[in-house]
Amino acid sequence: MPRNKKKLVKEVGEFGFIALLRRMFPIANKGIVGIGDDAAVFNRINAQKLLFTTDMVIEGVHFKKGTDPLKVGYKALACNISDIAAMGGIPKYALVSLGISPNKEIKYVHALYSGIKQLADKFNVLILGGDTVRSGKLIVNIALIGEANQGKIVKRSTAKAGDLIFVTGELGNSFKSGHHLNFIPRVKESQYLVQNFNPTSMIDISDGLAADLGHIIEESGKGAVIYEEKIPKRGGCSLQQALCDGEDFELVFTLSESEAKRLLNVRKKAFRFFEIGKIIEEGYFLIKKCGTKVELKKTGFKHF
Amino acid sequence: MPRNKKKLVKEVGEFGFIALLRRMFPIANKGIVGIGDDAAVFNRINAQKLLFTTDMVIEGVHFKKGTDPLKVGYKALACNISDIAAMGGIPKYALVSLGISPNKEIKYVHALYSGIKQLADKFNVLILGGDTVRSGKLIVNIALIGEANQGKIVKRSTAKAGDLIFVTGELGNSFKSGHHLNFIPRVKESQYLVQNFNPTSMIDISDGLAADLGHIIEESGKGAVIYEEKIPKRGGCSLQQALCDGEDFELVFTLSESEAKRLLNVRKKAFRFFEIGKIIEEGYFLIKKCGTKVELKKTGFKHF
Repeated sequence: MPRNKKKLVKEVGEFGFIALLRRMFPIANKGIVGIGDDAAVFNRINAQKLLFTTDMVIEGVHFKKGTDPLKVGYKALACNISDIAAMGGIPKYALVSLGISPNKEIKYVHALYSGIKQLADKFNVLILGGDTVRSGKLIVNIALIGEANQGKIVKRSTAKAGDLIFVTGELGNSFKSGHHLNFIPRVKESQYLVQNFNPTSMIDISDGLAADLGHIIEESGKGAVIYEEKIPKRGGCSLQQALCDGEDFELVFTLSESEAKRLLNVRKKAFRFFEIGKIIEEGYFLIKKCGTKVELKKTGFKHF
Repeated sequence: MPRNKKKLVKEVGEFGFIALLRRMFPIANKGIVGIGDDAAVFNRINAQKLLFTTDMVIEGVHFKKGTDPLKVGYKALACNISDIAAMGGIPKYALVSLGISPNKEIKYVHALYSGIKQLADKFNVLILGGDTVRSGKLIVNIALIGEANQGKIVKRSTAKAGDLIFVTGELGNSFKSGHHLNFIPRVKESQYLVQNFNPTSMIDISDGLAADLGHIIEESGKGAVIYEEKIPKRGGCSLQQALCDGEDFELVFTLSESEAKRLLNVRKKAFRFFEIGKIIEEGYFLIKKCGTKVELKKTGFKHF
């Protein structure tokens, strides 16, 4: 970063940004063209499948004004990594577009990139460049390319009736509890599953369990039944919150009954997998603790 | 699009968006997973080099409030394609992130995607998905993957002293004339050059000739001299405008002297290439019509 962190963004200019990015995201592999050129270049050794995703987070929508920029940067990349994990992939290369006020201090930008770097380093993601533009509200858009593990990918459209439904962690109250700003995207869990099992479908929970499982059954042309007593809830939150709050960034996935048994029988689990219900031919239901059957809608938190 | 184009964005919801995108950007190749899953997937047949770029455009910065959304969409993709062209690449796969007010009519979104589609179809770019979020001001971020032609890419850091400098078209007054909303990215020109010549460096003019040629010499560790009388200007614009206005989206490139002669001697040119000056060991100068030598700065339009 510039010698004086107090410098304003407008005082640093584009060259300063490039310099800052280069220092923060050095590219060890000399075969790669990264920050500072019109586009990033990388070589493909073999015919590996690639994954490509993007997510935009905006001040006042995905995080409150005044949120620690480090956490904003962290979240922006974490959402994208979560998408790659949800496909069974390994995150690899990212570009960061930043919309930011000219009057922000450069240390604010530095903190934001630090949050991105923290997670990028953890998952060996290379930040290859991006774009920076003027904006009143803070906007971070990240585009991320991932690789499939030995060609295996997991879609949301391939769940089968009889499959059991799992989630990877507690749900609900993510926004208020701050979980949405420091969650760890479930890459390891996803890789464990893809390498040792055959998940029939998978998605990450960004819009709430009800909505995202809704995507799976909608795209698969199936139905689902889930059980209130089986749904893991984040401390003190209600069923409604666990179903609809969104931004949990846990994975929901399905396994055939025999594979599910095998997963549940693994003794020393490195990860937590909660079986919460079953894929059925049609309909979408919740069985309450009292035994009442409630119809669910394939919508949860709505962006609009 | 939905049956009733007058529907508000907030009334259509995420499923509606996916459906709209799917209809507008159908994916013919069955090996591709596109819109509607967590991430887009595509197979790589061989070890082709890939290019990966992103650009964000924001209402009030890159286009005025009230600009035809079709032109906004067109411009958002055109900027990205221009970046791929500037590397000598061929644009291939894109993701679109859209920040938009919940109170916009869906026909507005449709027009915006139509602008993207217009250009995507022209250059055989596949739109594989994206993200859509709530925003007061309209924001469009596009991430684009391109392929290198037979492994050839052209960087900005490899210009050599003695190389001649070329531009692909008229410069200046792009914003006011509306050129920035309907320019054709120079993919064909770039491909012609890469296939028939060996450009030693290339960049697209987004920040103005002075600034972008400034990037080439800065990154190459060289200098440059350009001639006022040789710089092609958009109708009625001043030298200052041609040098500094930005958003021209023409290419600036350099060729060795012998290659430059060869280019200038090609009889039936499909494209226009204007020789405007020369790469030198150091310094950055403009020779005015009167013969005066003026020092240039490696900065033009500043984002901040």
